[in-house]
Amino acid sequence: MSTYQDNFRKITPYVPGEQSKEKDIVKINANENPYPPSPKACKVLKDFNAESLRFYPNANATVLKEVLAKYYGVGVQNVFVGNGSDDVLALAFQSFFCSDKPIAYPDITYSFYPVWCDLFGIPYVNYPLDADFRINPEDYKAANGGVVLPNPNAPTSLGEGEQFVRRIMDYNPDSVVIIDEAYVDFGGYSSVPLTKEYGNLLVTGTFSKSRSLAGLRIGFAIGSAELISVLEAVKNSYNSYTVDSLAIAMGIASVEDEEYFRSTVNKVIATRKRITDELRTLGFEVLDSQTNFIMATHSRYSMKDMFEYLKTKKVFIRYFSLPRIEKYVRITIGTDKEMDRFIAEVRNFLEENK
Amino acid sequence: MSTYQDNFRKITPYVPGEQSKEKDIVKINANENPYPPSPKACKVLKDFNAESLRFYPNANATVLKEVLAKYYGVGVQNVFVGNGSDDVLALAFQSFFCSDKPIAYPDITYSFYPVWCDLFGIPYVNYPLDADFRINPEDYKAANGGVVLPNPNAPTSLGEGEQFVRRIMDYNPDSVVIIDEAYVDFGGYSSVPLTKEYGNLLVTGTFSKSRSLAGLRIGFAIGSAELISVLEAVKNSYNSYTVDSLAIAMGIASVEDEEYFRSTVNKVIATRKRITDELRTLGFEVLDSQTNFIMATHSRYSMKDMFEYLKTKKVFIRYFSLPRIEKYVRITIGTDKEMDRFIAEVRNFLEENK
Repeated sequence: MSTYQDNFRKITPYVPGEQSKEKDIVKINANENPYPPSPKACKVLKDFNAESLRFYPNANATVLKEVLAKYYGVGVQNVFVGNGSDDVLALAFQSFFCSDKPIAYPDITYSFYPVWCDLFGIPYVNYPLDADFRINPEDYKAANGGVVLPNPNAPTSLGEGEQFVRRIMDYNPDSVVIIDEAYVDFGGYSSVPLTKEYGNLLVTGTFSKSRSLAGLRIGFAIGSAELISVLEAVKNSYNSYTVDSLAIAMGIASVEDEEYFRSTVNKVIATRKRITDELRTLGFEVLDSQTNFIMATHSRYSMKDMFEYLKTKKVFIRYFSLPRIEKYVRITIGTDKEMDRFIAEVRNFLEENK
Repeated sequence: MSTYQDNFRKITPYVPGEQSKEKDIVKINANENPYPPSPKACKVLKDFNAESLRFYPNANATVLKEVLAKYYGVGVQNVFVGNGSDDVLALAFQSFFCSDKPIAYPDITYSFYPVWCDLFGIPYVNYPLDADFRINPEDYKAANGGVVLPNPNAPTSLGEGEQFVRRIMDYNPDSVVIIDEAYVDFGGYSSVPLTKEYGNLLVTGTFSKSRSLAGLRIGFAIGSAELISVLEAVKNSYNSYTVDSLAIAMGIASVEDEEYFRSTVNKVIATRKRITDELRTLGFEVLDSQTNFIMATHSRYSMKDMFEYLKTKKVFIRYFSLPRIEKYVRITIGTDKEMDRFIAEVRNFLEENK
């Protein structure tokens, strides 16, 4: 006897992290940007003709693609946009990983990769990062159904350069390789220029971190016209209108405001350097971040305890109860003022627990 | 020898319709609402704190769900929201149609159903509408892996009542039944109250038609807590943040402005009645619409020719080059002024071709 429940998708619920609604908190747990979006993008919002929302958005988001193509020095046929980079990556997994062979990615990386593999029935294999949390490119020589690597990686914050990516590409002429560059603007190496050489390389990006537009949901991908056309076909078979009219308009203004973009990214990088130095002075080991967050640990203190302590002080950082990184905390780079409060509470924690 | 192209998703590209960028046009081809969104929703946009977009949206869109739950007289655990009803329906297909048996829907219906079945590998069977373009409920007695029916149906514009839906439900205790109510607010019967009786009934809706927010992408579903929890699990395994912060804020204001909603819906209904009558006076056969569009044909004129003629006059209606409906045109209800111009050009067409 069959029931309607038999036809349900069998899936383990993935529960997104709860966000605190308290006031006067230091929220440095979600890798959000501490600075507002470009004032020019904000002005687009203020001036937006709300009445025009009765029309469907441009399904192709043509102008946003044109602006991104110009910014990255590629053709408009090399650009894809979606509802945040999670949407772009989920579509890319469905588009390019249709193999019986497992796709390959590191054991410590973006938590959504295994979730998408489970959802889409994609087999996968994880290669452990080395003792320094580095990706070993030799692991990706083995036959696979595809490769996905974040560069810089998260939550390690560590980035790799051009030679590393070229090795991955040279080992994998017969797989699509996705390089997830969510954090690249904070000092990482971008593989976008390599997409002109390697037809099987897809680079993904997001407006949620360096462009301060997490609330608006814009992600993108850059690759050969061949890859982009498959991605478009799958997207248009799923939902033609993933990027709404306001996201398109504000996204365009954001990309066009290079000066503001550079200034806020540079502020985050400068604060990151200062906080890294201060934590090291306090005895922490801090990985060399190329992102808007840092991974830190201390040989004499429990990072889980520090995480819990800071929470009671309304300073919210991130702790992963996961093998290999359970001795670390992930700290998003906030404003200097926020980070001063963070450092002060860290000092209090060390003081109270010494 | 395998290549990376072997791992591509095999799919026929679905190309969304191009939208005209010309000015001074009458655009009555996409079932968009001729009236702007609620002024209260527009005010929310003007007053929106653009700086807050640096934060991720509330992944659960809790307040929007609460407002919809109150509006529809259900619990918040009975409401799901997504990035337009296409997103909601695509997730529902993935969530509830995991059967080897074919899902069932009519031969003439929303064009995305077969596209999603192809994308997700869901087998399907189509039951022909009868000669009057009505759905025969007896067809849905046969064993199936699920049922999806738009009510009112599109592009026929015809709706069915409570007894019809109850028959479908009584025939299908062991399948999930999705009733797609994209157009229901324009005079159709809503099955939302039946979701309390039938745990396997999912009703979907959209803000794109009756709420004039096609550009913002908000869709929703109402059903038993069991169905909604599966939908949430699949959604959160795909993309936690499908509905952006602006969509949440404007969506809330839209639902709360019942007076404006009623007044614009009633204007569309009044114009629909007038245009239906005028077309019938001109010799057209017009189906009895419960939607914001009408299906019309004329025994002595080619509707394809009329569609092409109107295009030259910058009046854009929709023609489907499809079996059974190739003698019809679909006309979205615009403002009275737009529809006057439409009727005037229709008269010109009839005059020039008599």
